[in-house]
Amino acid sequence: MAHSNNWYKADLRDYRFVIFEQFKLQQVLGQEPFEDWGKEEVVATLAEVYRFSTEVLGPLNAVGDREGVKLVNGQAVTPAGFKDAWDKLYASGFLLLSVSKSHGGAAGPRTLAAIANEMTTGANTAFDMYPGLTAGALELIEACGTPEQHARYMPPMLEGRWSGTMCLTEPQAGSDVGAAATTAVKNADGSYSITGTKMFISGGDQDLTENIIHLVLARTPGAPPGTKGLSLFLVPKFKLNADGSTSAERNDVTLAALEHKMGINGSSTALLNFGDEGKCTGELVGGVELQGMRQMFQMMNFARIGVGLQSLGVASAAYLAALSYARERKQGSSIENFKDASAPRVPIIQHPNVRNMLIDMKARVEGARALLVKLTTHIDFAAALQGKDDAKVEYHKGQVELLTPLVKAFGSDQAFRVCESAIQVHGGVGYTKDFPVEQYARDAKIFSIYEGTNGIQALDLVARKLGQRGGQNARDFLGDVQQFVTTHQAHPVLGAYVQQLGLAQEAVAGAAMQFMAWFGAGEMLKVPLHANRFLRMMSEVAVGWLLLEQAVIALEAQSKLSRTDQDWAFYEGKRFAAVYYVQQVVSEVVGAAKVLASGDTSAWDIPAESFATV
Amino acid sequence: MAHSNNWYKADLRDYRFVIFEQFKLQQVLGQEPFEDWGKEEVVATLAEVYRFSTEVLGPLNAVGDREGVKLVNGQAVTPAGFKDAWDKLYASGFLLLSVSKSHGGAAGPRTLAAIANEMTTGANTAFDMYPGLTAGALELIEACGTPEQHARYMPPMLEGRWSGTMCLTEPQAGSDVGAAATTAVKNADGSYSITGTKMFISGGDQDLTENIIHLVLARTPGAPPGTKGLSLFLVPKFKLNADGSTSAERNDVTLAALEHKMGINGSSTALLNFGDEGKCTGELVGGVELQGMRQMFQMMNFARIGVGLQSLGVASAAYLAALSYARERKQGSSIENFKDASAPRVPIIQHPNVRNMLIDMKARVEGARALLVKLTTHIDFAAALQGKDDAKVEYHKGQVELLTPLVKAFGSDQAFRVCESAIQVHGGVGYTKDFPVEQYARDAKIFSIYEGTNGIQALDLVARKLGQRGGQNARDFLGDVQQFVTTHQAHPVLGAYVQQLGLAQEAVAGAAMQFMAWFGAGEMLKVPLHANRFLRMMSEVAVGWLLLEQAVIALEAQSKLSRTDQDWAFYEGKRFAAVYYVQQVVSEVVGAAKVLASGDTSAWDIPAESFATV
Repeated sequence: MAHSNNWYKADLRDYRFVIFEQFKLQQVLGQEPFEDWGKEEVVATLAEVYRFSTEVLGPLNAVGDREGVKLVNGQAVTPAGFKDAWDKLYASGFLLLSVSKSHGGAAGPRTLAAIANEMTTGANTAFDMYPGLTAGALELIEACGTPEQHARYMPPMLEGRWSGTMCLTEPQAGSDVGAAATTAVKNADGSYSITGTKMFISGGDQDLTENIIHLVLARTPGAPPGTKGLSLFLVPKFKLNADGSTSAERNDVTLAALEHKMGINGSSTALLNFGDEGKCTGELVGGVELQGMRQMFQMMNFARIGVGLQSLGVASAAYLAALSYARERKQGSSIENFKDASAPRVPIIQHPNVRNMLIDMKARVEGARALLVKLTTHIDFAAALQGKDDAKVEYHKGQVELLTPLVKAFGSDQAFRVCESAIQVHGGVGYTKDFPVEQYARDAKIFSIYEGTNGIQALDLVARKLGQRGGQNARDFLGDVQQFVTTHQAHPVLGAYVQQLGLAQEAVAGAAMQFMAWFGAGEMLKVPLHANRFLRMMSEVAVGWLLLEQAVIALEAQSKLSRTDQDWAFYEGKRFAAVYYVQQVVSEVVGAAKVLASGDTSAWDIPAESFATV
Repeated sequence: MAHSNNWYKADLRDYRFVIFEQFKLQQVLGQEPFEDWGKEEVVATLAEVYRFSTEVLGPLNAVGDREGVKLVNGQAVTPAGFKDAWDKLYASGFLLLSVSKSHGGAAGPRTLAAIANEMTTGANTAFDMYPGLTAGALELIEACGTPEQHARYMPPMLEGRWSGTMCLTEPQAGSDVGAAATTAVKNADGSYSITGTKMFISGGDQDLTENIIHLVLARTPGAPPGTKGLSLFLVPKFKLNADGSTSAERNDVTLAALEHKMGINGSSTALLNFGDEGKCTGELVGGVELQGMRQMFQMMNFARIGVGLQSLGVASAAYLAALSYARERKQGSSIENFKDASAPRVPIIQHPNVRNMLIDMKARVEGARALLVKLTTHIDFAAALQGKDDAKVEYHKGQVELLTPLVKAFGSDQAFRVCESAIQVHGGVGYTKDFPVEQYARDAKIFSIYEGTNGIQALDLVARKLGQRGGQNARDFLGDVQQFVTTHQAHPVLGAYVQQLGLAQEAVAGAAMQFMAWFGAGEMLKVPLHANRFLRMMSEVAVGWLLLEQAVIALEAQSKLSRTDQDWAFYEGKRFAAVYYVQQVVSEVVGAAKVLASGDTSAWDIPAESFATV
């Protein structure tokens, strides 16, 4: 079983289920702005992306990990095969799926692009960083750039001739973006001279494209301190000719070093020096200063959802790899025969302990997918209703804001857990490089850190998102869950579990009030101390809700099928995953709320010198 | 801060605290069998081991990881510096600390050897595998070998001229040891011809010693199936001369491959072929057949406690590395000034979210250490009371049996969690090889797998250990916790937390009864499905108990100190770690017991084909 060229698998049936049976994307297909898209086109596209992911990207995943990116003569050299895959990916058109028609895109729903991206990143996370960052940069330029900037930068980036990066972090500042010290001084010709150092730049250098467009946060002279003083600049690796083409002249951007990392080794992580010789020039995004942080958040929000997709992609790949292994590997006798040493060996999926891990992974992966697609369909419904129903648009956009930290932080934490379980299902061989799961775990560890650590996501949730629109986004979310509970609490099969969800929803609502009370009483310290637990509780309720909704749909579908129908087993899986998750995960949310309400401040009360004597 | 040669740190103060203030090892020092040992000798020895660990072993940890073990001309070649460290370690005498005098050892308490081992393995886990396995093999030979075997094998292994390994796993069998297919056929001269393949043999080949003694489980002709049919053999890499010295003639043991792993890269993990040419000979351990599994369990129990020590060593190193980083790295402003962009930067230990992670790590690490030393003092007290108080000896030995799966499984799961937090505290740099924490995480992942997976440990606990001595071991444990609760539930500072512990203790007792009820009702399936949760609950109660006991001792000690005394801050840390752990971890045990009692069988009920459609 080992030494396969491609390990990647996806469950296309689950994609169809969440997109059409659960979130009913078809309601907005075939009409503006998705008038070219119907159900068949979506399904066919996903099948194509799957084929591409398994045939082109999957086989390069281990290669990229083992080879890594090399620094040769001041230039990053990507692993063998990456350039070819890059060219094929841009030729495929998959990166244009949700790009608007005015920029040559296919104007498809974001949900389609997201699931396509789950596959490309699940098959090869490190590779997918390069087009992923480029897509984020494109999104920013489209949203914030001038028409001239659209014309100059977007076509070559859409065609894959140029790539994009996002340069926030500086060595002395880390997550504290407002401490950025990179400077930008306006020149007579309207361009800016950029000077400073940026670190952890994904795709900061590579040999895949003829040019790289760095989006660089920098401070103009006299700008206020903190994030309010930052402006955003387009800084190409090679200077542009007057006609917008890439010149042979290097901009003064130097690759100072590449990081050696735990994982995503095929992705270059660069330390970049801008203006070492005083000759680095850039162009102000949108032509306005001091808008850098606001502009960068366009890309940042996109990137945070992207990290949720990476988390889902890798977790799903890890789960399906473990499932394959558990179905094929024979070891030990069945639990019914455990005292009979000569009983036949059985596949390890028949051992309760392995089965426990598998249903846990299934519930977490399919639950994370449901949460992510819930978020992307909010984007698509908002787009479809734009100008038609302002209140609903506000509702959908508010849910996108609210769910983004959940998708990023809970998604990434869960992904690492799932990868860990995938190793455990494999046993000793899972710890070796003969199987893909140890790489999945190493790759996945970064997801809890970059694009805002998970601690920052939790703070974003409790200190910003809960209070957004006067708390309306949070009330809408809790109301949606409550509505589901009210409708289904007497369900003949699932009623008891729906009621458990109801108790957990009340616990989350109470915890949200608790934060408001702390804010009101000036007990600010308790907010960050308990933010992580709240994010987890709210995420578990969200996932429990969506899994139960899947179970309701599955039981309804089964009522029209016979046990021999092809879909029967698939629906049966939905039911048990939901029951498992509610009983074993959601049921603990009520207790977690009690812990939160205790307002324990031990972490703060312990003196810094009391942690250890060394 | 990066690029240090040695990252390893230990908190010697905590060792003295658990050994003397909490578990009062001094009560058995200075008397048989520890007549040469007093408190000063123990303290001085630990200081020496610490120096050795930081000066010799720590600097080789990253080296071992990056270089790995190489296969050169059929021979494993260890990383640069390992041979020198091996020689120094054996010259130091540290490996003789708890070896009996009759074999040239120092006859010290097991607790001392254990803490010494926490440091050596914490400084360099991969290196420490070689002497660790050798010590385990020695323990087995001492316990099960004939006097001739003692004389032949023990001296060179004690001196570090030979090493030892443990050969259980076979490719087709994995954790199912009873499926071993390696055969042993008796020769006319009393030796046995061994034929078969063993995998995942730690230290299975290396260039550190002149010979390697493999302890090999194999099946004699006509032996019954399963583990009952196994016998154990001493199989040297090089044949022995009549006088016991190593000959130049190779035994027919071939190094077929070395595994490429996620971590512990400096430790060789070998695939060994025995008897490919029909010329592999071995010697029967103890001269009796069919005792192999019983004999191997001598080494296995030793090894499981050893994995607990590895887990503790790496987790402690990761915690102290994160603590150092958090104290030195300045980033962001204090929470009191969060709206002032020009407020001074503060060390990140002043951020609530970082502080949360640190106290969580502290509680888990120091709690794991308390649990481990609780276990080793049970060993030492049993040894001291041998022949003097049979009932107490039974009690102490019973607790060793009961706590071993907790120390192995909970310890290793927690260690991985702690390493994960250590990366998170570091942020992006924690994901790079400039800091030691990503290696700690990679090294630590194996601990949940080898020497019996954690799922197997949980089954061992609920299906074997809970019922041992008619349930007396479990009753003793629960009684000890209950006794503590009764004594301290009205404690002026800690009473409320002690009462919380009491509720959790009752929940664990109830869950234990629940298993008995399932056994009684023939609902066998629920046992493995809920064993992991029970192991976690019982471990959390054990750790909560021992941390609260530390807090009681610390407050008592503080009552005799002033705030300016050197130990004040140390004791203050004990109090807050206990309060944190009880409020945020132990408090959830009651809810976990309810989940367990639900007896959810979704993991089993879901049909195998319902996990996914691929």
